[in-house]
Amino acid sequence: MIRAAALRLAPVVRTTPILTSPFIDDIAGRRVFVKAEGLQHTGSFKFRGGWSAISALSEEARAKGVIAYSSGNHAQGVALAAKEHGISAVIVMPSNAPAIKLENTRALGAEVVLYDRESEDRDAIGTQIAQDRSLHLIKPYDNPYVIAGQGTCGLEIARQVDVQDADVLVCCGGGGLTAGIALALEADAPSLRVRPCEPEGFDDVIRSLESGEVQTNDATASSICDAIITPSPGELTFPILKRLCGPGFVVSDDECLRAMAIAFERLKIVIEPGGAAALAAALFHSDSSKDVVVVATGGNVDAAIFQRALDISR
Amino acid sequence: MIRAAALRLAPVVRTTPILTSPFIDDIAGRRVFVKAEGLQHTGSFKFRGGWSAISALSEEARAKGVIAYSSGNHAQGVALAAKEHGISAVIVMPSNAPAIKLENTRALGAEVVLYDRESEDRDAIGTQIAQDRSLHLIKPYDNPYVIAGQGTCGLEIARQVDVQDADVLVCCGGGGLTAGIALALEADAPSLRVRPCEPEGFDDVIRSLESGEVQTNDATASSICDAIITPSPGELTFPILKRLCGPGFVVSDDECLRAMAIAFERLKIVIEPGGAAALAAALFHSDSSKDVVVVATGGNVDAAIFQRALDISR
Repeated sequence: MIRAAALRLAPVVRTTPILTSPFIDDIAGRRVFVKAEGLQHTGSFKFRGGWSAISALSEEARAKGVIAYSSGNHAQGVALAAKEHGISAVIVMPSNAPAIKLENTRALGAEVVLYDRESEDRDAIGTQIAQDRSLHLIKPYDNPYVIAGQGTCGLEIARQVDVQDADVLVCCGGGGLTAGIALALEADAPSLRVRPCEPEGFDDVIRSLESGEVQTNDATASSICDAIITPSPGELTFPILKRLCGPGFVVSDDECLRAMAIAFERLKIVIEPGGAAALAAALFHSDSSKDVVVVATGGNVDAAIFQRALDISR
Repeated sequence: MIRAAALRLAPVVRTTPILTSPFIDDIAGRRVFVKAEGLQHTGSFKFRGGWSAISALSEEARAKGVIAYSSGNHAQGVALAAKEHGISAVIVMPSNAPAIKLENTRALGAEVVLYDRESEDRDAIGTQIAQDRSLHLIKPYDNPYVIAGQGTCGLEIARQVDVQDADVLVCCGGGGLTAGIALALEADAPSLRVRPCEPEGFDDVIRSLESGEVQTNDATASSICDAIITPSPGELTFPILKRLCGPGFVVSDDECLRAMAIAFERLKIVIEPGGAAALAAALFHSDSSKDVVVVATGGNVDAAIFQRALDISR
């Protein structure tokens, strides 16, 4: 399915570059290869999964339009893929999503429906609207075509990075990207081991891997890593993660901000807090001298947060 | 010479991506393709020319070491190329160069010699040290191997961007990159026309092209575009520019800051002021509806200036 998704994506996806810096290698104490997925269309890897899911629909199903729920990156990925397929998209988004994500999703032609992250259930809202308006629901990670689309990032890593026996650190929310990359590397670069990276308070995947059972986050936690603060691993993703992933890393918001500033200074790329979790783990939680591949998953960050990252590092 | 430089660079250079955004196309009123040279090693295209020049030396000449003068990007490009060739490098830099450029050049192992931009002549200082210490001087643009190295960026543009009859806007200082790209496109994509972009007060190349004679800037001018504030076109570069380039664009510091903020928001890349001149021209001085390729030449900017760019755009 990942290879089929790669064929459907080939005419439109951007092969994002692998970036390196001797300064970053020095901080991490090992060679660090950064896959810059923020340079993907819509500023995150999510375009891969959105396009994969929409392009896999029958023409008849597709024509009715799609619906998704998302804090903002899946939103934009689905919105652009829908726009380029000439179909309509409804996106259910938290009212406190970053302004840039709300604006961009609307600007890409999607109809945005807001909900309250604290008190409402986005899955219930999305499922209800999908039913009422006969739209195809594209879940952000519990959808095989979405996982396959994200997996194309892993096929690229296997092709682009010439390393053996390395860790691959992935910023992890519901686990769609992490599972997709793990499946792709199982086939194309089996000496690479995927390890999920999560913010403090939202380390559900890491604790689930440790215990072998699905764990859920404390509902009162908060983090600036809006892209990856999901309640628990997905139903489809967790079995994949359990089979293929190594132990994960928990990073603090402050470490993510510092990683953003280092990426600004050394790589010349913009990363959002949730997209910096893997780089933060490589920089500040190194537990090995193995080469490490870091997936910098997105760059959709408001200027105020980015300035804060630069401030604390000056 | 450009193709030979490309062969020498092939094992080490990063093929920088072409980035696009529908939001940027909307502002410019035409399709905009951004060549993100800030993602090159050392954060600017200058690594191409530095590596090209050092790798072209005989082993005997190379072993004696090299010297360069530069406001900071050529400095880092030469310093890294020298380090990777295992030779020493002396770099003559203005004492008011951005801190990031001074620090990085030293961290890459080069010996930095400071001079006063207002009162001293860097060419005289560099030539004297080269003579005293038997070092090979690598001028920032008036060196055929440097021009050939920068030209490899043009070979990539011809291969990566599928457009006809388009403008190619290049941030222009002494004209090494502009001339190199123009020569490469003359061979590989002759329907593309190179047009130099310069900051107000430093439009020597543009005025030289208009008058047909070498013009010099007023010594009292100032600009935040430190990378491209050269006094006049090069001796080697001007005849090439005169033969191949279309009319240029003069942009203001403020327009460069706004272009930096738009690149942050829409492309997720970091551009320095002088590296944003071409994007500023595409965004704010469009004189055509033709497709346009923009070379974003570098990303070595201090956090304070970058924050200023985000501030004025909020």
